[in-house]
Amino acid sequence: MNIRTIDYKNNKIRIIDQTKLPHKLVYINIERLEDLWQAIKIMRVRGAPALGAAAGLGMYLGIKDYRGSDWLGFSRRLNKAAKYIASSRPTARNLFWGIERVCLVAANNKKQPVAKIKKIILSEGKKIMQEDMASCRKIGAYGSKLLKDNSTVLTICNAGILATIDYGTALGVIYRAKEEGKKIKVFSCETRPLLQGARLSTWELYKQDIDVTLIADNTAAKLMGDGQVDLVITGADRIAANGDSANKIGTFNLAVLAKYHKIPFYVSAPQSTFDLIIKDKAGIKIEMRKPEEITSILFKKDIAPKKSRVLNPAFDVTPHQLISGLITDKGIIRPPYFKNISKIFLGK
Amino acid sequence: MNIRTIDYKNNKIRIIDQTKLPHKLVYINIERLEDLWQAIKIMRVRGAPALGAAAGLGMYLGIKDYRGSDWLGFSRRLNKAAKYIASSRPTARNLFWGIERVCLVAANNKKQPVAKIKKIILSEGKKIMQEDMASCRKIGAYGSKLLKDNSTVLTICNAGILATIDYGTALGVIYRAKEEGKKIKVFSCETRPLLQGARLSTWELYKQDIDVTLIADNTAAKLMGDGQVDLVITGADRIAANGDSANKIGTFNLAVLAKYHKIPFYVSAPQSTFDLIIKDKAGIKIEMRKPEEITSILFKKDIAPKKSRVLNPAFDVTPHQLISGLITDKGIIRPPYFKNISKIFLGK
Repeated sequence: MNIRTIDYKNNKIRIIDQTKLPHKLVYINIERLEDLWQAIKIMRVRGAPALGAAAGLGMYLGIKDYRGSDWLGFSRRLNKAAKYIASSRPTARNLFWGIERVCLVAANNKKQPVAKIKKIILSEGKKIMQEDMASCRKIGAYGSKLLKDNSTVLTICNAGILATIDYGTALGVIYRAKEEGKKIKVFSCETRPLLQGARLSTWELYKQDIDVTLIADNTAAKLMGDGQVDLVITGADRIAANGDSANKIGTFNLAVLAKYHKIPFYVSAPQSTFDLIIKDKAGIKIEMRKPEEITSILFKKDIAPKKSRVLNPAFDVTPHQLISGLITDKGIIRPPYFKNISKIFLGK
Repeated sequence: MNIRTIDYKNNKIRIIDQTKLPHKLVYINIERLEDLWQAIKIMRVRGAPALGAAAGLGMYLGIKDYRGSDWLGFSRRLNKAAKYIASSRPTARNLFWGIERVCLVAANNKKQPVAKIKKIILSEGKKIMQEDMASCRKIGAYGSKLLKDNSTVLTICNAGILATIDYGTALGVIYRAKEEGKKIKVFSCETRPLLQGARLSTWELYKQDIDVTLIADNTAAKLMGDGQVDLVITGADRIAANGDSANKIGTFNLAVLAKYHKIPFYVSAPQSTFDLIIKDKAGIKIEMRKPEEITSILFKKDIAPKKSRVLNPAFDVTPHQLISGLITDKGIIRPPYFKNISKIFLGK
């Protein structure tokens, strides 16, 4: 695609600063782990697959300046970086997966000189990016089979280019369908509070020349009731072994509305979003964010009485019973999920 | 209550300019029908019952300066005012009911001198206000029986003091429960696009010392799933003979979510919101509003690409099957609605 969310160039992580969209397309370079932590926290970079890559590359930022040559000291530094990155945001599985992957490859090479391990870590971070690019294209290829010419898809938040390296999961399905010559119409829920649907999805869908209509999140039921939605496709931040899927707050709403209206509801995510150690939604930690995300719009204009009491969970969990299928890089998983997720990823 | 949304004083309609809330409580005086039309259009005054009173008083503004003394000329002027007010917003039944009521009382007195008919019309406008104050208190009294001490109510938009003369329908139920010594907790959906929940309901609930927590509309499913909502109460803009209820966009979403979670869902409205000529939702006209309500926040800060295609219906219709009961000034109506609505209002 013509947009790249994360890259590693000239010894720096280069990201699109998504807080500046849709007004300006600004790339920033990150050299210090603290700046990456902050960028994740305030969501300059966001989206589960993108966070996996950011975490992987961030691990390199955390150790690249280590002066010693001993594994013990190096591994302490590595663990410190791991804990630090892990403290940025709790819900997206990929962030932890990126960290763990780097820790594992380092441990597997602990007999190598530290300088070599550093190179291996950087190359692992880059590999995560490469793999994501391939994964998203596989998700797109599997998912696009669900779309016919003139299908209308409803989506929420941004599970597109900007949530991955360069292609997207939910929106990747749409991009692939377009590549296959299908005309797809998209309804993008604006996605309060941080408006990723309005700011990011609408922006990138325009750039890719997809027919997109922006709606308030509140309009979803009416649209479905009016017969204007063929299917819902969302991304995911963490998927439990039974298929329960955490994603942006409001996703669960759409799943219930889709069920009521008998509209298929799909979740799209790469294997790295699955957390098979967690049995079901009870094990998924939901990030709670600042009240100011609700009491103001993008921290600018107040829209509620000052000091309003606010509840601001960033995610909800859609129970697997409401999900028609999980579009993954290994194929579309159908119910029964516990059995079929295990089969596709663990081969048993 | 200590707040009065609409009044008639010194030959002027005095309203709270709700576009200025929650920042400033500003009263404005309206002397010209054109200014009232504009105030309704841009929602300085809104809420179905308040619009009924505004329309009734507006009819007086439309005829008070008529110079002639002939019924024919006067009635032409009256009809012109009626058509003009009716063109402001299409969905709330009360607006048309207020207009029709004034037209009827004028026609019934057409043999009187024009000066006398003018007085009768003004007095009809004031009567609508008085009746609304009484109606809301009856709705409150019937509805509060549904609430126990420590009940938690979810609501959307503003069906409170600011949607009526001085008490509210959905929020009136909560005020009454409080007067009865019950402690009620309220979750207020912020209600995109125009944020009446964040700007108006949160503001007036604070003023009335009610425990209110503001949420993004997207948080409703999670809250219900977490067992934090005992019942949903909303207002209505127009209710068909079969109970199908138009209300602020997003209400239908809440009704579906409540059904899924087995949470009672109530609609509260005075008789003047019922439109018994309309059989079901197919007959309810839904107002479509400007894209800028979605692409910017309160017309200030852009949040989506310029010229985004937008769909912005101001209302949706909740099918009667999803409604546990209609809390009216004549009692709580239960299913079967077609039969019971007819019985309570028409006595047959």
